[in-house]
Amino acid sequence: MILTVAQLSESELLARIFPRLHAGTSMLLGPGDDAAIIAVPDGRTVISIDTQVQDKDFRLRWPNGSTSTGFDVGWKAAAQNLSDINAMGAVATSMVVSLTLPSTTPVSWVEQFADGLSAAIVALGAPQCSVAGGDLSGGSELVVTVAVTGSLDGREAVLRSGAGVGDQIAVCGNVGFSAAGWALHESDHAPDSFTPALAAAANLFARPEPPLAAGPLAARAGATAMMDISDGLLRDATRIAKASGASLDLDGAVLRGLARGLEECAVVLGADSLTWVLTGGEDHGLLSTFPAGVTLPEGFVRIGSVLSKDAAEPVVTVDGQNFKSADSGALGWDHFAV
Amino acid sequence: MILTVAQLSESELLARIFPRLHAGTSMLLGPGDDAAIIAVPDGRTVISIDTQVQDKDFRLRWPNGSTSTGFDVGWKAAAQNLSDINAMGAVATSMVVSLTLPSTTPVSWVEQFADGLSAAIVALGAPQCSVAGGDLSGGSELVVTVAVTGSLDGREAVLRSGAGVGDQIAVCGNVGFSAAGWALHESDHAPDSFTPALAAAANLFARPEPPLAAGPLAARAGATAMMDISDGLLRDATRIAKASGASLDLDGAVLRGLARGLEECAVVLGADSLTWVLTGGEDHGLLSTFPAGVTLPEGFVRIGSVLSKDAAEPVVTVDGQNFKSADSGALGWDHFAV
Repeated sequence: MILTVAQLSESELLARIFPRLHAGTSMLLGPGDDAAIIAVPDGRTVISIDTQVQDKDFRLRWPNGSTSTGFDVGWKAAAQNLSDINAMGAVATSMVVSLTLPSTTPVSWVEQFADGLSAAIVALGAPQCSVAGGDLSGGSELVVTVAVTGSLDGREAVLRSGAGVGDQIAVCGNVGFSAAGWALHESDHAPDSFTPALAAAANLFARPEPPLAAGPLAARAGATAMMDISDGLLRDATRIAKASGASLDLDGAVLRGLARGLEECAVVLGADSLTWVLTGGEDHGLLSTFPAGVTLPEGFVRIGSVLSKDAAEPVVTVDGQNFKSADSGALGWDHFAV
Repeated sequence: MILTVAQLSESELLARIFPRLHAGTSMLLGPGDDAAIIAVPDGRTVISIDTQVQDKDFRLRWPNGSTSTGFDVGWKAAAQNLSDINAMGAVATSMVVSLTLPSTTPVSWVEQFADGLSAAIVALGAPQCSVAGGDLSGGSELVVTVAVTGSLDGREAVLRSGAGVGDQIAVCGNVGFSAAGWALHESDHAPDSFTPALAAAANLFARPEPPLAAGPLAARAGATAMMDISDGLLRDATRIAKASGASLDLDGAVLRGLARGLEECAVVLGADSLTWVLTGGEDHGLLSTFPAGVTLPEGFVRIGSVLSKDAAEPVVTVDGQNFKSADSGALGWDHFAV
């Protein structure tokens, strides 16, 4: 007999969740009242929200036999929200969490979700961030929404709109691994057949590792524009191009170098590793621009340059050419395309 | 041909939403980047999150022929989140919104949602509050999550835990109207047959009117404990009793007085109006305690007193008796009870 959420009252379920939630130094009032209270030393709150939906963003059971555990989904919820704060050059201060749960959801899944959320906060390097509250609802499919707040600690935020002509374009963190891992989950290659390289990609899809120290580091180093790569390098670079009104050119040789780490996955799946690098989202690496003279902070790799600002329609090119995917021509992830 | 969300790209859908979102004075950076930035003058952010799920919290089409429009769902999302901030004695500063949308969702529903959200913010008296960002996902049912931030403007928050022996218990705003309105929606009484009293209850269920000025007013008047009534007066009063370690006794005559405004609905539906007052949620009125000597702020009605703090298990009674619902004995709304 698996204990399901339908067998507990809301308060009984909350009593199991609360002790598992990470409490950081910024929390002035924690869960249990109508709202929580977070310290905001510099007078500005950075805020974002992100949702994962069952069978869209994760499957409880994948074609290759993998499962997305509550721990995995909690980790990923934390990672992608922490990444949005990182991408502003800020540090996370709190999360509030909404879970929509089918009545058949095992209580252990919810407990593991709370564990994964808290584990990621600490392991990814955001121990000051608290899980400050949440909401539970019933529904026919699992939906996980996290809103996250952050502090700029007196710095200016790094927006998407600041890229200047001649700036270096750089990435930090993994690029394309989550996409390769997703393709493995959707394949018929069982996890027990994975080589270390395949297991690494699969794990980075299940539990992404955004480089949380790098956002504030880039801000202090003078980054002119920044965002996290959540929908694919080309699609997200196009967002910086449009916001900054500047065209971006990427260096194919460097990108092919980044793709080499995915070559073993690509061979196994008959896929194109460069397409993963250019269109794969959800690794939550950082895409940043820096003035030409700046020494890139540790962990950043130069992948191109910001070109003219006079084009009518800012574009992103690779070695001066428009990129065509070997697979489909798609630029990256769109939540509603059919 | 109805334009559905599946026919637009995410950026096309966002372009239709952004111009409809209310921008208040506290927004330093609005939607469009990885996160938004909100001004926090007093160094503390109050934060909460709340979710509505299709066919749990609302139906697109009700048994009596009513519809929940996008405007209604947006209004309610704003109202219940603004209420959580109000219940702390704070004023709202920002919302971030996550929408999970079936691909068949008409674009007009999403646009009306944005309109209802923004309209409620202004009409309910929170014009300083901005819709600062959001997230869109696909899913099999509509799920609407809003996270809200607020500012205490230098005041102390009013928690659930501060009720003291001898305190007056008071409510402000509607009590039981939303429950009566819900019962009408679930009945076979068509909206075009409604008398003004029935229409008022139905409208307050669709678009609740939390008394947003009253939270800060109560805080300034010295309220010792406060919460909004979202799950039913008895259930929520029990939360204050437990958090404060004190038993609460309510005045049956006053509660029957509050129920009189629901009598016409009760007769039409063969229901018990006092049960609606005691167990009906989602009006988002305020339940507060004040020291014995304090003159209650405008809009508050005294409904009882805080009794001893020495009971092993703090309880809520009506005229010294435990309440038994005429209908089911239930105390109020539980999100997982089956």
